[in-house]
Amino acid sequence: MRTPLCDVFGIEHPIFAFTPSEHVAAAVSRAGGLGVLGCVRFNDPAELDRTLTWLDDHTDGKPYGVDIVMPMKVPTEGTSVDLGSRIPEEHRRFVDETLLRLGVPPLAEGEGREGVLGWLHSVARSHLDIALAHRPVLIANALGSPPVDVIEQCHAHGVQVAALAGAAKHALSHVANGVDIIIAQGYEAGGHTGEIASMVLTPDIVDAVGPDVPVLGAGGIGSGRQVAASLALGAQGVWTGSIWLGTEEYRSLTGSSGWEAAFTRATSSDTVRTRVYTGKPARLLKTRWTEAWAEEGAPDPLPMPLQNLLVADAHNRINASGDPDVIAMPVGQIVGRMNEVRPVADVMADLVEEFGRAVSSLDRIRG
Amino acid sequence: MRTPLCDVFGIEHPIFAFTPSEHVAAAVSRAGGLGVLGCVRFNDPAELDRTLTWLDDHTDGKPYGVDIVMPMKVPTEGTSVDLGSRIPEEHRRFVDETLLRLGVPPLAEGEGREGVLGWLHSVARSHLDIALAHRPVLIANALGSPPVDVIEQCHAHGVQVAALAGAAKHALSHVANGVDIIIAQGYEAGGHTGEIASMVLTPDIVDAVGPDVPVLGAGGIGSGRQVAASLALGAQGVWTGSIWLGTEEYRSLTGSSGWEAAFTRATSSDTVRTRVYTGKPARLLKTRWTEAWAEEGAPDPLPMPLQNLLVADAHNRINASGDPDVIAMPVGQIVGRMNEVRPVADVMADLVEEFGRAVSSLDRIRG
Repeated sequence: MRTPLCDVFGIEHPIFAFTPSEHVAAAVSRAGGLGVLGCVRFNDPAELDRTLTWLDDHTDGKPYGVDIVMPMKVPTEGTSVDLGSRIPEEHRRFVDETLLRLGVPPLAEGEGREGVLGWLHSVARSHLDIALAHRPVLIANALGSPPVDVIEQCHAHGVQVAALAGAAKHALSHVANGVDIIIAQGYEAGGHTGEIASMVLTPDIVDAVGPDVPVLGAGGIGSGRQVAASLALGAQGVWTGSIWLGTEEYRSLTGSSGWEAAFTRATSSDTVRTRVYTGKPARLLKTRWTEAWAEEGAPDPLPMPLQNLLVADAHNRINASGDPDVIAMPVGQIVGRMNEVRPVADVMADLVEEFGRAVSSLDRIRG
Repeated sequence: MRTPLCDVFGIEHPIFAFTPSEHVAAAVSRAGGLGVLGCVRFNDPAELDRTLTWLDDHTDGKPYGVDIVMPMKVPTEGTSVDLGSRIPEEHRRFVDETLLRLGVPPLAEGEGREGVLGWLHSVARSHLDIALAHRPVLIANALGSPPVDVIEQCHAHGVQVAALAGAAKHALSHVANGVDIIIAQGYEAGGHTGEIASMVLTPDIVDAVGPDVPVLGAGGIGSGRQVAASLALGAQGVWTGSIWLGTEEYRSLTGSSGWEAAFTRATSSDTVRTRVYTGKPARLLKTRWTEAWAEEGAPDPLPMPLQNLLVADAHNRINASGDPDVIAMPVGQIVGRMNEVRPVADVMADLVEEFGRAVSSLDRIRG
């Protein structure tokens, strides 16, 4: 399995794996793909630095990438304290009452932490500075083009820049800003996503940016047949995320068995695209928590970054409680296919093997 | 391009084309696919009978199919007059005021007609009886399983039955009812559609029904790359619809040039999934008409079949006026790819040729 992107990055398979877990990222890179570590969860720059040092040491010299969350336009900044003062009392009351109604216990002493500050521009900048002191080959930005000086900074370090796009016009604007690789993020994807499904979006973007800009297909990819479909649509590689939640290497981050129970029983109908996680539309597992926000009388979610500050503590409580009916989990429609927990290397081997079988089947159909 | 379905139906390419136009259906069948005539627009059984006779005479002896709209459970019946009495005055007023606000003129003398009665069970039954007196090889039902006696009636005539499904559990229930072929209708499709995108839905359904039940991929298919993607996902053929609106053969049904202006300028972002057309969620072109129903204070659409009776006359007025900003058109996200009007034979030739190129490209990637 080989596209030009394999040569660009020195990887065996054009399978990119976004994951907040350094253990998953390292295992994907060792297995011939490109592990991409999500940085948004690191509030403490020193912790990110230690984690990237660990990655440097556990990828057998293979390449890896880093994912940041940086809007192009610098948004309202502030500490979590002064941003917190802009959260309406009605919203805080709704969160408190909903947690009570859903039976989510408070955190134990010392378990709390402040909201995820990675959504703040200044924190994302610090992530970038730390990452560039290590050896990533790719910086991906989950919110589209990063600021142009950030792109230039990456290029000065010989690092390629990828950006997510949910429509062809956004992809064109990323390319104009200097982005090297477009991630076509389809409607079915987990996390932040637009309205256009992968089947339509991937060739739209491939045709819009032309043959010189590699496109990764994202959204709905959890099997080798789906890898083949995405490459048939013109992608040079695939960007995967949700499927890595179902791996043994991810377990150090899940915190509870409720998490695994939730995704193994879910079908592809059990997700919802909602603004409750960050303030921008993102696909989550549909649970009593997301349903509560959809009920008559629930407040509208706040804009980014306020919404995540509002719910961060609630999400910590929910996920610590481990109740699979309530859990707060970004995941794509592919969750219906995540029915067991396996080692990363097995998942990778299956993707590659099933890709080969899908292509053989198409060969027979073509005749 | 050959799958076992080609032998079942005696067709050259497993490309199925749903269309309300007998001219498009005939041209697709003549070009080696299977044209499937949508019957819902025929209020007058004699007109359907004449149209099928025309099809019998204009397909060069090649096979064709027929599409009906029949719920499994017999819904509230009635003439358009007594059903009309169940439409709230508020809804009628909203439609009248919206048409006035959008500048849609009344129909000229003699242009009006009653609502589309094909949504009524009794009318769909008459469509079936008429169709079976001709030579269709396939009856497809847009609303899932038809009643079991209908399936048996088709089988007694040697006609296969296909049914649309938007989730694996619906597909399994169709198979249990005796349906022969499942059409996996993804979120991106035009007309009635569910929430799960094709990239996820097609393999979900293929795996659920097993190798003995052929699956057609539907939603987002308007190019050979998309045909290849759908077959890579395990479909034995594709079910297409929107792309045939952009053909010369369809022009006898469009009524105005506004229709073509509307779809040639639309991007894949310009559709919306809404209940305003029939009462069930269906994807339409996003226009000032669909936006009016989404505004604050607009009434909720009525259940099927009342909503279509409510808006049928409005749709006639809108489409006769030809204003591309207002037009009422079921279409999928693939509309972004419909940028010119061409003969059916050219569209078919491109699908087949690009399919071949996509498979060759996958061959090179596999190595």
